Amino acid sequence: MGYQGKIYATNPKGGEILGLPVYRSLREIPGPVDHVVSCIPAEETLQLLEECREVGARVLQLFTAGFAETGEPDRIELQRKLVEMARRSNIRILGPNCMGIYCPKSRISFCLNYPQEAGPIGLISQSGSNTTYIIRSAVVRGLRFSKAISYGNACDIDECDLLDYLADDGETKVIAAYVEGTSDAQRLRQVLTRAASIKPVVIYKGGYTEGGTRAASSHTGALAGADAVWDGLLKQVGAIRVHTVDEMVDMLVALLRMKPPRGLNTCAVGNGGGASLLATDELERAGLRLPPIPPHIRERLKELIPLAGSMIRNPFDASPLLGAEQARLLDTAGMSGWEDALREARFLRGDKGIGDFMAALDDWPELDSVILHYSVDSLPGTIRDWVLATGAGPMIVAAKECHLPVAATVHFIANEDSWLPSLKVQKLCIEAGFPLFLSMRGVARAIRRLIEFNESHPELLKSLREEMASG
Amino acid sequence: MGYQGKIYATNPKGGEILGLPVYRSLREIPGPVDHVVSCIPAEETLQLLEECREVGARVLQLFTAGFAETGEPDRIELQRKLVEMARRSNIRILGPNCMGIYCPKSRISFCLNYPQEAGPIGLISQSGSNTTYIIRSAVVRGLRFSKAISYGNACDIDECDLLDYLADDGETKVIAAYVEGTSDAQRLRQVLTRAASIKPVVIYKGGYTEGGTRAASSHTGALAGADAVWDGLLKQVGAIRVHTVDEMVDMLVALLRMKPPRGLNTCAVGNGGGASLLATDELERAGLRLPPIPPHIRERLKELIPLAGSMIRNPFDASPLLGAEQARLLDTAGMSGWEDALREARFLRGDKGIGDFMAALDDWPELDSVILHYSVDSLPGTIRDWVLATGAGPMIVAAKECHLPVAATVHFIANEDSWLPSLKVQKLCIEAGFPLFLSMRGVARAIRRLIEFNESHPELLKSLREEMASG
Repeated sequence: MGYQGKIYATNPKGGEILGLPVYRSLREIPGPVDHVVSCIPAEETLQLLEECREVGARVLQLFTAGFAETGEPDRIELQRKLVEMARRSNIRILGPNCMGIYCPKSRISFCLNYPQEAGPIGLISQSGSNTTYIIRSAVVRGLRFSKAISYGNACDIDECDLLDYLADDGETKVIAAYVEGTSDAQRLRQVLTRAASIKPVVIYKGGYTEGGTRAASSHTGALAGADAVWDGLLKQVGAIRVHTVDEMVDMLVALLRMKPPRGLNTCAVGNGGGASLLATDELERAGLRLPPIPPHIRERLKELIPLAGSMIRNPFDASPLLGAEQARLLDTAGMSGWEDALREARFLRGDKGIGDFMAALDDWPELDSVILHYSVDSLPGTIRDWVLATGAGPMIVAAKECHLPVAATVHFIANEDSWLPSLKVQKLCIEAGFPLFLSMRGVARAIRRLIEFNESHPELLKSLREEMASG
Repeated sequence: MGYQGKIYATNPKGGEILGLPVYRSLREIPGPVDHVVSCIPAEETLQLLEECREVGARVLQLFTAGFAETGEPDRIELQRKLVEMARRSNIRILGPNCMGIYCPKSRISFCLNYPQEAGPIGLISQSGSNTTYIIRSAVVRGLRFSKAISYGNACDIDECDLLDYLADDGETKVIAAYVEGTSDAQRLRQVLTRAASIKPVVIYKGGYTEGGTRAASSHTGALAGADAVWDGLLKQVGAIRVHTVDEMVDMLVALLRMKPPRGLNTCAVGNGGGASLLATDELERAGLRLPPIPPHIRERLKELIPLAGSMIRNPFDASPLLGAEQARLLDTAGMSGWEDALREARFLRGDKGIGDFMAALDDWPELDSVILHYSVDSLPGTIRDWVLATGAGPMIVAAKECHLPVAATVHFIANEDSWLPSLKVQKLCIEAGFPLFLSMRGVARAIRRLIEFNESHPELLKSLREEMASG
C-alpha cells in the first residue's frame, strides 16, 4: 500500500521475494523490528515469540490460526502458554486468527484494494471476513476509515483495549465494532460507557441466537454470553446495536452523512408505483410515518405533475415529472453535454418543475425528512447509465436545496445489467452529500435508529456534525 | 420479441414507424384486430373504445393512466364510463395504468430483455414496476415464466379473473401474485381457495401498513383493506404470503428448485467465520435450527479439514478444505482447463476431500438440509471469477451427491468488482440444480416457508416436483 517504513521478509529457506531479501530468522534482520506479522503454523509460534523477545519487537500479530478457537485442549493450552510468555516478555499479541491492521494514514493494509484515503470511522472486528466486507461495502457508499483492526481470538489485545484506544483517537469520530464475545464483561461495560459518551458507537454482536452463540465460541473461542445480557449492556451504555453487516454500514452512512430528522414523519419521492408501495411498507414497518399530504400542498404539486402515471400523495411516484426534467436536460444539453449540465445545474424554486416540487415539501409543516428513491429495474427498457442518471439526476440535484434532511436510495437492482449503470446514480447521490442506501429496508431502519440516537444523545450527533463540517 | 401475428401501428398523424405503416385509426386497418394496446391520453379512450367496438376487437389494454387511481372525481367517473361502455360492447379491458402481457410462448412482451424461453411461473401484478423487477430478478436465479400480466387498476379484468385463469392454465405450475387490493373480497376468497388447492400460490399484498394501504389506493385505486383481514384470508385459503418482491423471488426459487426438507435442522457450510456466524443468526432467526455436530461426525471431518482457519462445528467454515480442493483443481487442470475439469468433475465418497465431507453430512441422522454459502467479499485479495469459481466450485459439485436437500447462497457481494466475478459461481449453483439465493436472510426465510408449506400441502409440492421432473 506504499508503506514508508522498512519491511523485512523472513523464512527459514532464505532467498528473495518481490525484490526483498528473505532473512532466515528475525535475528538476522539488520535493523530494529517493531511489529511482526506471523503466517507460520501455530505449533511454531512459541519459538517465534522467543525471537521477538530477542530482537525487541513490541507486537506479534498472528494471522496464524489453530489455537483456542478449535476447541481442542492442546490448542487451548498452546494459546495460554503463548499469552503467558508474551506477558513475561512485555510483547503484545494481536490475534491469533486475525487479519490485522488497516491504517490508510500509515499505508498499512491487509487487503489489496482498500482506499489510501482516510476517514472518520474506527472499526474493530473479531472476524476477518466481516472486516473485509464491511470496509468494501462502506467505501462504495462514500465512507472512509481512520483505522480498522481485525483482532480474532483476542487472546491478549482485546475489544476493551481497542475500544479504549479508539475512544481517545482524534482521527476516529465514530466507532464501529463487530464483537463475538468478551472475557471481561465488567471492563467491557466500563470501556463502552466511556467510549459511547465521547462518540457514537455502533455494535454488531455476532452470534446472538442460540446456534450463533455456539458458533462464536467455535470461530474465535469467544465467551459469547446470552443475547439478553448483551442487549441490556448495549442499551445501558448507549451503543447503537445492529444485527447484520449491512445494517452496520447503513447505520454508519446515516450517522456520518445525514442531518438527523426531528421526528418520524417522512415522505417517499421516487419512481415506480410498486416500488413506492414497497418503500412505504418498509418505512412504516421500521416505525416511521408517512402522513397524508395536506390538500394545499397537493394542489401545488398538481400544477407540476401530470395526473397520469403519477401518485400525488405520500409516497409520491413522480415518474412523469422526472421524465419531463429528463427530456428537458437531454433537449438542452444533448447526449454529449448532459453530464456537465447536470453537474452545474441548480433546480431552484420557481422553476415550475422539480425545484418547485422540493419547495412544496419544505413547506409541509408536519414533515421531518425526505426519502428519495430510484428503482432501477422498474424501467421496462434497456437499462443504460445515461437513462438512469438523467432520470434520477434532476431529482437528486434539486433535493440539495431542501431544508429538510434528505436520504437517497438506489434500489430494485435485479442483475449485473442494472448494477453497473446504477453506479452513476449512486455517485450522484454521494456527490450531492446525501446518505446513499441500496435498499428501502436499509434506509428505513437506519433513519429510525438515527432519530432514536439523536433523541438520546443529541450532543454527540451535534459535535459529530460540527467536526465533519470543519473537515 | 418475434411476435408472429400481425402488428398494426395507429396514430392520427399517419406515416411509418420501424418499417410499419401507421394507420390513422383502427378503422383504417386492413385486417381483423383482436387486441388493442393504448398509449393515448385518458380523455381519448372513450373514443378509442368506440373504434374497438366497430372493428370487433376483444380486448383493450390500457397502458394509459390517469383514471380512478388519481382520486379525482372526474377521472373516477371516466373509468366508470369506460367500463360501462366496454361491458355493453362485450370488450374486456386490461388496466388501465398497466404494462400488460408477457407471454414468451406467443412472443409477446412489454420489456425488451425478457427471455423467450418459457417456464412454470404464472405471475400477475397490479404494479408494472414490480412486474419488471420480479421477472428480471427471477431470471437471474434460473426461473422462467409461463405468462406474466401487469393489470393495473383492474377496472374490468381483475385479480379474480386472472387467478382463475392461471389456476386452470396447464403451463402454469406455480402462481405468483402481487396484489394491492380487491373490489370483491368474497369472489377473491373463492377463486384463491380453488387456485391454492390446485397449485402453490405465492402472494405479496403490497401496502400492508397504514401508509401502504393509503398508497395502494393512490397507486391503482385499489380497495386495499386492513392487513389483518388479508392475513386471515391468505392463511385460510392456504396461500404463501411474502412481504417484499425479493421474498417473492426467493420463495419461487425454493418452491421450484428445492427438495422440501423434512424438518428444521440444517447446517451451514461455506467460507468465512464472520459470514458463517451471520448465516447462523439469520437461519435461527427464521426459525431453523443448527444442531451441534455429533462427536463421531466431527471426528470424521477432522481428518479432512485442518484445524487452523476452519470451524469444524455447525456452521462449518470449510475454508482450508475449499482451498485445498481449489489448489488440487488448478494444479491438475491448470488455468486453461479448470472450467472443463470442474464441469466434468465428480467428488465422490472416499476421496479424502470435499466428497467425504458431504458424505459425513449425509450420515448425520438429525440433519434435514444443507445450506452451502460462499461469501465473495470475505476474500482479502482481488476478486476474480476464476478465484471464486475454483474456490466454491468443488463444494457445489460435491454437494450434488448429497441425499439431503441442498440450497446455495452466494452473498457478501460488496460492489461491482465482486458482482460480475460472482456470476460464474451463481451459474455453477444453478447448473448443479440447486436453488440459488443471494442473501442468508433470503434463503433462511424461504426454506422456513417451504417446510411449513410442505407440512400443510404435501400433495401440492409432491405433484409440483413430479411435473418439474417430467419436464
